[in-house]
Amino acid sequence: MHHTIVNNELIPADKASLLVSDLSIERGYGVFDFFKTLNGKPIFLEDHLDRFYQSASIMQLPVSRSREQLKAQVQELMQQNKMPDSGIRITLTGGYSKDGYDLSAPNLIITQQPLPPAGGLDTTGIHLVTYAHQRQLAAAKTIDYMMAIWLRAFINQEGAYDVLYHQHNNITETPRTNFFIVTKDDTIVTPSHHILKGVIRKQVLQLATGSFTVAEREITIREVYEAKEAFITSTTKNIWPVVKVDQQIINGGKPGAITKQLSTLLQQFINSNG
Amino acid sequence: MHHTIVNNELIPADKASLLVSDLSIERGYGVFDFFKTLNGKPIFLEDHLDRFYQSASIMQLPVSRSREQLKAQVQELMQQNKMPDSGIRITLTGGYSKDGYDLSAPNLIITQQPLPPAGGLDTTGIHLVTYAHQRQLAAAKTIDYMMAIWLRAFINQEGAYDVLYHQHNNITETPRTNFFIVTKDDTIVTPSHHILKGVIRKQVLQLATGSFTVAEREITIREVYEAKEAFITSTTKNIWPVVKVDQQIINGGKPGAITKQLSTLLQQFINSNG
Repeated sequence: MHHTIVNNELIPADKASLLVSDLSIERGYGVFDFFKTLNGKPIFLEDHLDRFYQSASIMQLPVSRSREQLKAQVQELMQQNKMPDSGIRITLTGGYSKDGYDLSAPNLIITQQPLPPAGGLDTTGIHLVTYAHQRQLAAAKTIDYMMAIWLRAFINQEGAYDVLYHQHNNITETPRTNFFIVTKDDTIVTPSHHILKGVIRKQVLQLATGSFTVAEREITIREVYEAKEAFITSTTKNIWPVVKVDQQIINGGKPGAITKQLSTLLQQFINSNG
Repeated sequence: MHHTIVNNELIPADKASLLVSDLSIERGYGVFDFFKTLNGKPIFLEDHLDRFYQSASIMQLPVSRSREQLKAQVQELMQQNKMPDSGIRITLTGGYSKDGYDLSAPNLIITQQPLPPAGGLDTTGIHLVTYAHQRQLAAAKTIDYMMAIWLRAFINQEGAYDVLYHQHNNITETPRTNFFIVTKDDTIVTPSHHILKGVIRKQVLQLATGSFTVAEREITIREVYEAKEAFITSTTKNIWPVVKVDQQIINGGKPGAITKQLSTLLQQFINSNG
């Protein structure tokens, strides 16, 4: 049985629990971050810790550990679990509230799950369906996935892989990934506002700069329909091509050349840093 | 130590817990309802159970118990705790998800806390501050209070009791209560859409009908500012007068005559049914 950390204790994962007075259970209040390990090494750990502390700060949750202490806890868990290729999630909740409403001392949970390393590019490509919704407090990685999970029935009915959120016809993100298009003139574009800024999003923007014109700006649904290529990025997926949005086929339904090129660059960069 | 029910077990409240894989903790997914007991009798129980099953249905969470079975569990908890004046909360979560995302068999939690009976009218009246926000899936009583709790800092800074949500200048509700105004011509008005329909809201509408003209319709912020009286309703509070919204004083800063009259009617009705 692998282990989980709850506050300062290593606990078998099937016993790791929170009292029902925790504000995540009572009021859906908490933040988290999630990173991979490959061959026992955390990938882009500093970026994920930056974002974890930022999410906690936005959500007014004090982190009662320094960054070094938190890293030491992650190391402790990795040494216990001996799980070289994994996903590690650090969650910070609103804590055990006395009145079921006011924030209390946050509870910290660190879980580790086996995760096969993301391979190269998924060659099939996925179908997204647009949906008008703006994530609450989008700059923080909160535990609020209520709409995303509620929408699974709609997504399945549409035969899609996931929703692509938009507000006033400007697309933003999918519930768990960032979204990019390649325009007809080979500019790589991704939204800049009202989104969670992903760690892979940042890496892709950096890797693309130099070889391509890159822009962070608003993207309308119409621009998505007319895009030469489209793809999503995330820690779990790296880069996945998007070949259909609503009823619009993109790049003849096949992963695009620039998408493939960026995926290769990203894979090389991760391998050289892993 | 009083007890809590988790699924089918009576557990001391300080031991009642969920595993950290529950979707309330990982993804903020769950619904609940909350009712009072007075002298050992649940108040408006059928209305609350109606809404609990409706919330669960909207959120695609199957309730693995009939209404009679659920009532029997509430009775079991009340007999154990011997707490005549209390608040009972029934929570249903997204369950222990295998992949941290897909819904699983829901977990059911029933907690009971001491709650002093709401007295007559609070004679001071409260100050609300308007804020542009629409609750997600507002017709369901979900555990999503993220914005409400995040806004506490803003509310305190404004010296207010709570926020009054509006969208496009039409007010809707506060995070935990319904909102009413009395217009200059003594019509009692409350919003009808994009809100959670409260049990006390329904009782007040029924009690007011006959003695007053009653309307369920959109209310603009301007109408609130110009209202003769304003009040909120909730299970915990019954009726509380609102004497200030933003910087606008209402009814000279004092609870209104019709607010008082409705409060008395409601109190009598609850006592006669208690």
